[in-house]
Amino acid sequence: MKLDKLVSERFKERPSDCVMDSHALMVRGGYIKPVANGIFSSFTVQRRIAAKIERIIREEMDAIDGQEVVFPVVMPASLWEQSGRYQAIGGELARFSDRNGTPMVLGMTHEEAAVHLVREYGNSYAKYPFMIYQIQTKFRDEARPRAGLIRVREFTMKDAYSFHTSQEDLEAYYEKCYQAYVNIFARAGIPEVISVMSDSGMMGGSTAHEFMLLTPAGEDSIAICTHCGYRANQEAAPSIITNAPDENDAPAELTHTPGMQTIEDVCSFLGSPVERSCKAVVYQKNADDAYVAVFIRGDLDVNETKLTNLLGEAVHPAVITEDSGLNAGYIGPYGLAGDFTVLYDSSLTGLRNFCCGANKEEYHYTGVSMARDIGDVICNDLAKIREGGVCPACGQPAITIKRGIEVGNIFQLGTKYTKAMNMQFLDGDGVLHHPLMGCYGIGVGRLAASVCEARHDEYGPIWPMAIAPWQVHLCCVRADVPEVKQAADALYEELKDQNIEVIYDNRQVSAGVIFSDADLLGVPLRVTVSPRNMKENVCEITSRDKALNRRVPLAEAGGRIQDLIRELR
Amino acid sequence: MKLDKLVSERFKERPSDCVMDSHALMVRGGYIKPVANGIFSSFTVQRRIAAKIERIIREEMDAIDGQEVVFPVVMPASLWEQSGRYQAIGGELARFSDRNGTPMVLGMTHEEAAVHLVREYGNSYAKYPFMIYQIQTKFRDEARPRAGLIRVREFTMKDAYSFHTSQEDLEAYYEKCYQAYVNIFARAGIPEVISVMSDSGMMGGSTAHEFMLLTPAGEDSIAICTHCGYRANQEAAPSIITNAPDENDAPAELTHTPGMQTIEDVCSFLGSPVERSCKAVVYQKNADDAYVAVFIRGDLDVNETKLTNLLGEAVHPAVITEDSGLNAGYIGPYGLAGDFTVLYDSSLTGLRNFCCGANKEEYHYTGVSMARDIGDVICNDLAKIREGGVCPACGQPAITIKRGIEVGNIFQLGTKYTKAMNMQFLDGDGVLHHPLMGCYGIGVGRLAASVCEARHDEYGPIWPMAIAPWQVHLCCVRADVPEVKQAADALYEELKDQNIEVIYDNRQVSAGVIFSDADLLGVPLRVTVSPRNMKENVCEITSRDKALNRRVPLAEAGGRIQDLIRELR
Repeated sequence: MKLDKLVSERFKERPSDCVMDSHALMVRGGYIKPVANGIFSSFTVQRRIAAKIERIIREEMDAIDGQEVVFPVVMPASLWEQSGRYQAIGGELARFSDRNGTPMVLGMTHEEAAVHLVREYGNSYAKYPFMIYQIQTKFRDEARPRAGLIRVREFTMKDAYSFHTSQEDLEAYYEKCYQAYVNIFARAGIPEVISVMSDSGMMGGSTAHEFMLLTPAGEDSIAICTHCGYRANQEAAPSIITNAPDENDAPAELTHTPGMQTIEDVCSFLGSPVERSCKAVVYQKNADDAYVAVFIRGDLDVNETKLTNLLGEAVHPAVITEDSGLNAGYIGPYGLAGDFTVLYDSSLTGLRNFCCGANKEEYHYTGVSMARDIGDVICNDLAKIREGGVCPACGQPAITIKRGIEVGNIFQLGTKYTKAMNMQFLDGDGVLHHPLMGCYGIGVGRLAASVCEARHDEYGPIWPMAIAPWQVHLCCVRADVPEVKQAADALYEELKDQNIEVIYDNRQVSAGVIFSDADLLGVPLRVTVSPRNMKENVCEITSRDKALNRRVPLAEAGGRIQDLIRELR
Repeated sequence: MKLDKLVSERFKERPSDCVMDSHALMVRGGYIKPVANGIFSSFTVQRRIAAKIERIIREEMDAIDGQEVVFPVVMPASLWEQSGRYQAIGGELARFSDRNGTPMVLGMTHEEAAVHLVREYGNSYAKYPFMIYQIQTKFRDEARPRAGLIRVREFTMKDAYSFHTSQEDLEAYYEKCYQAYVNIFARAGIPEVISVMSDSGMMGGSTAHEFMLLTPAGEDSIAICTHCGYRANQEAAPSIITNAPDENDAPAELTHTPGMQTIEDVCSFLGSPVERSCKAVVYQKNADDAYVAVFIRGDLDVNETKLTNLLGEAVHPAVITEDSGLNAGYIGPYGLAGDFTVLYDSSLTGLRNFCCGANKEEYHYTGVSMARDIGDVICNDLAKIREGGVCPACGQPAITIKRGIEVGNIFQLGTKYTKAMNMQFLDGDGVLHHPLMGCYGIGVGRLAASVCEARHDEYGPIWPMAIAPWQVHLCCVRADVPEVKQAADALYEELKDQNIEVIYDNRQVSAGVIFSDADLLGVPLRVTVSPRNMKENVCEITSRDKALNRRVPLAEAGGRIQDLIRELR
């Protein structure tokens, strides 16, 4: 294809709304164009990359016996009512009524549709296990779409669903799919992607992993143990806190603490370490705005995912009103009265002689002890694991927190959906059971953007050969010089004849424009025909990552390029 | 792939809700499963067929310099307001509000998105012509989805948009695309598809063609001239009516016509030919329910497409109320008074001495003449062309009406969208113009179903090799007999090694079940290994259409099958 016929434009200025480099480069390079917040059209360049990623995904899914199907984008709400998710999911599920007034939803994931499709088919154990998958458009009405294709509202996703007669079989297949994911990311050019344990959130089920590309620009936080290699999403990692012993048995005492804004202020005022304090973090349930007070050691943060999982419903940070019965800034577990849900983080277990709010304007208690003053309350793990925290696997205080982009996820769903939707199979003894499910997702556009994020320089993406929009970018510098143009034209035809995917820039523009456009398109091999090279009857082959720079006789160029493509694949 | 691992079930009973054979067979064969009215999931079998159709379409679109892109399924209503279609299109456009209350629509076609994508790119004449296309999910909230994948609400469609600097260039490209469509239908196995002139309806523009598969089960009516070959959708074909001369100058007379229900009743009562009558067909505008009375010769029907086009707005058959001022059953053009839109079909031009309603309960006029009694009114072509009607091309009364399924359409849109959305290019003289557009659609699922409709017998589809889900259906009859199973297994491996797409039925079930399942899957070549064949060391190769039946030595089977696939392709 000739570059001057490529529908899309490239430009130099970084758009002001682009936080991540991949976003900026994909807009500047004419890959994508925003249509609405979090909704993009893709130009041909991006479509070509996506098609190659989709092909890799298909091959890997087919290799583990996946069967490609298609579920609808638009589904009746009644299908989602069967699983309970029509009610359970909030604003991110787009809902509308069709012309007959029937409530419909836009698919953001397809567990219900998957069970619907195979409910009758999967009636006998002999048909198990099986896996079905699709690659299709989804819509998730994200509250805060950002970063180009990294977090969008409309996206193309490969979603796969496996069905099993036993937990062992599910686990064995889960392992296979895990390996397929490792293959996919490696083939797409980012083998450094790591798996981390994850929270299964609204999906249900227990075991789940996310595949993360570590990058400071990522929006996920990952806890990694530098000692044993343990890796988990910060949302999912257990927080282990041990309190230093304290034999002090002083009574609780009311202390005037005027104008203190934070627990740190209070502790510093009282001359007490923050590790000997208890703070309240207050939420409200989305459903009815009822207050939920979480007490946690003053130096820790609440993990809202754990909180949501414990409550079984969504919450948001509280707006504490005057008539709430809560004294914002002075809330404490001792003497708190009112109709609130009160929860305690495990960090408070056995804590003695600590300070906390006195539920009275401008007053805190000191010398409070859990067992003596608060009593035999249940403590739950509701804290965020933190830098330097204790590794839940090896027990060493060796946790470090990294940022990452989630490029894929896999879940063991168990029987959540098959039970809710009454899918059953007969086992060998004629007994009915609900099959177990696994589900496995990869966003195609997000993967493309992640590769760009991991493989770019200031001038543009550096696409790996396997997913590059073209294999070769042929540049004719000084196309106004007939013999240069002739040589470049001939090479273009030769490369096309060899079925090499080549984008050919034969515009009569400056070398600067030619090369900066080539940088933005990020094609792995650049072949330059120019007057200077022509003098020696060579062309120049360079790789986009600058690792390679060779002058090759024009007569040999076709073959050498063919070899290089093979090497880079 | 082994049939016993194929996710989907086949069954014998024709579902009672299936009017068309293709619908029944695709449900019975485990191709599709309904999720809601007009919304289906596709099993692997259908997905494989669709993927092959998509590949053919891509190749043909790329061959005419199309560039594949992706537009969003979900678009902001504001984009559709730019073209005016947000208001102009009725209930078939699905609308919803996102979580921020922004009005959104689901794409049913993408003219607006296409202009949005290339508005900046197409700023200079030098970049023209260009064509972009996508293959993607669409949602059109059809009032009456029916017939399986023929008329659905959610569908996968290839939609292409071309941009031009002149009408000549648009026409030249339109021709190329026309030929690409001819190629696509031929390659997909239905070369008998014909093109017909069509109404451009809500798309705007003038010239348009539909590609039709003629079949009595089709829902479109097509006017074909048996004399000159003229072909047009009945919606779009001009109706040419010549009235026999009549010199009678008798005055209009009121006649009592009690209890007459139809114009035929009235004419028969009055002993007057229906060709000498005028009837009223009354509509109401969708927007405000205002009445529209269409007067037309008694033997003709109103073409609602022409009516809608003339009015520039949608109408529905009227509900005539008592206070409407209309005397249902007795409405006539002579002496009609009231605040109605009144339209006259061209069939009334020069009509003399006819009967018509007298706008008075139980009375008709006889002896009415247009010029004398109605005056110098404008007559428009509002009638449906009919069987035996006059061909608009050659003038012979040789029109026949056939039924067909529309499998594709192409439109010359002109500047409707580029004007409305202010897309402009600079010509060579530095003058700004709006580019002209063409658009070109093919529904992937509908094409698959149409091929099935055209190519099936009572036992199942007869898929052409180019789009068949597999190339070979290998049947092992008596898989319980070790040497039979062994031979079939070996052939399966051999075919797979040759990269032949083979579905292998090695179930221990009766030959009847094996063959009826094979018929439902409709794979073009069937290879049977059975005890009887084994005695002679042969296998039996038959084609699904029964044209071919050969016994081939097992040792030669692989090569022979390879040859047959090539021949059938």
